[in-house]
Amino acid sequence: MNDFEQLVRRHETFLEQILHRYAPPATRLMQAMNYMLFPGGKRLRPLLVYLCGELLDLEPSNLDRIAAAVEITHCYSLIHDDLPAMDNDDFRRGKPSCHRAFDEATAILAGDGMQALAVEILLKELPQFLTATKVIAVTQALVCASGTSGMVSGQSLDLSELGRSDLTVSELQMIHQLKTGQLIASCANMVLAATHASIETTHHLSQFAHSLGLVFQMQDDYLDRYSPESLGKKRGSDKANNKVTYATLFEQDILLKKINQLYAQAQANLLFFGDKAIKLSQLTDELKQRTENFCSNIIS
Amino acid sequence: MNDFEQLVRRHETFLEQILHRYAPPATRLMQAMNYMLFPGGKRLRPLLVYLCGELLDLEPSNLDRIAAAVEITHCYSLIHDDLPAMDNDDFRRGKPSCHRAFDEATAILAGDGMQALAVEILLKELPQFLTATKVIAVTQALVCASGTSGMVSGQSLDLSELGRSDLTVSELQMIHQLKTGQLIASCANMVLAATHASIETTHHLSQFAHSLGLVFQMQDDYLDRYSPESLGKKRGSDKANNKVTYATLFEQDILLKKINQLYAQAQANLLFFGDKAIKLSQLTDELKQRTENFCSNIIS
Repeated sequence: MNDFEQLVRRHETFLEQILHRYAPPATRLMQAMNYMLFPGGKRLRPLLVYLCGELLDLEPSNLDRIAAAVEITHCYSLIHDDLPAMDNDDFRRGKPSCHRAFDEATAILAGDGMQALAVEILLKELPQFLTATKVIAVTQALVCASGTSGMVSGQSLDLSELGRSDLTVSELQMIHQLKTGQLIASCANMVLAATHASIETTHHLSQFAHSLGLVFQMQDDYLDRYSPESLGKKRGSDKANNKVTYATLFEQDILLKKINQLYAQAQANLLFFGDKAIKLSQLTDELKQRTENFCSNIIS
Repeated sequence: MNDFEQLVRRHETFLEQILHRYAPPATRLMQAMNYMLFPGGKRLRPLLVYLCGELLDLEPSNLDRIAAAVEITHCYSLIHDDLPAMDNDDFRRGKPSCHRAFDEATAILAGDGMQALAVEILLKELPQFLTATKVIAVTQALVCASGTSGMVSGQSLDLSELGRSDLTVSELQMIHQLKTGQLIASCANMVLAATHASIETTHHLSQFAHSLGLVFQMQDDYLDRYSPESLGKKRGSDKANNKVTYATLFEQDILLKKINQLYAQAQANLLFFGDKAIKLSQLTDELKQRTENFCSNIIS
């Protein structure tokens, strides 16, 4: 088992414990939350939390809580995004989406509950390990990224704007920055909020996370458009919905170049940390491979 | 303008300011949030916050934020409860419900955003006035009442259990305690969390709020069943959905007696505070009048 697999296992063990500790009195709600959280996806956000945290020598017990909170928030957003009134996706990670496996009401409530649970975990668990001021700063970082100044506005603009044929690149970028970029960046920002980081450390780590947040959707759009492999949902579903994506705004080779540039920027920011950032650099490289592997398949 | 009207005006002025301060980048989201928050309903929860806060000599600037947070949380829950997949209510407060005036996706997102906004306001605004430890305690009180150990589980159980013909009184009470009781009680609990209250003060104020939280749904069920007046939604809609209510479990006179007993308990807990609780006692009396006025109308 490699380092990343070990961290994912640690995260999932903790997630199970915390879900048990905060088990809601409504059984069906608990089942729906469990269904969405296990088995998970790539667990990218928890991995980022652990690796950024290791970089800044933050206690693993803090990281467990922060990683759980961000993953629960991410999963709540997936449940709501999949709803018929939103993206209307029947499948998620190769199994029926939450509202298909249960019902719409349960899916809405499971999402609502998970949003609250993420905050509850931080506010109730972190004061054992961090000062109250830091607990507030960490929780703020999550809530700002996921709330009306972040993810929720991003999803609203996604629904109202991505059908516009005159959408500009900077508008598209702003929407995805709100919708997915900020929550990915919050993995680094929450960890930074929990430490006494220098201005340089803060700058480089948040720039790293910012680049990663930006590139992620570009790469998803690229793979959704060009990859022969399923991404766990109907292939090309964005195109079927006539949505503007990075793959409709850029030619394939230009989009690939932009993706590689953003990954290079992310790596450049990690240089500041020297050898301590080896694992984070390796994760970044593995993420980049998602497009590289596919491209080498085409060439070979 | 009486004291309560003045407080409601103060609350609404602050609510407008805070909404402007935290205006989301998505216009449609902002419109939906505004639509749901103005004009409001009775503003019972903000009134409770202000009056409990006055009782404990808490600064008005704290109370503005706490009142806004609880009202925003309450309104988010109304938006989601009205959705077709939930209670499927086309009207709320005499106008089309949020998903009818906008669309389902916007209603879901407005609710999601408002849940986050309430927490964001507390975490960002209260540290100017309270210690970090108290800010955490106040925010915890809100999130626990509204999350999976409170309101969200209550709504889930409402949907799954209230159709059961063998539902017991204590089960019904538990469901409503989770669904509406805890958020009403949180008005007092948040204020208590912001002060250094004695054990007796904490006991009497939280018992007062607990009784009020319990009686509220009983009275709603009573009025929904027996009042000739509209409550801003289709009359008797719970009965039309074949839901168990307090009015289906108790005869009219027994239910009325229970309502009066709970109001008497609430008032009894206020006696501890003497003259300082005059306004809170008056509000409690006005709430009780909702059934009294109606009954005197029948008799006269």
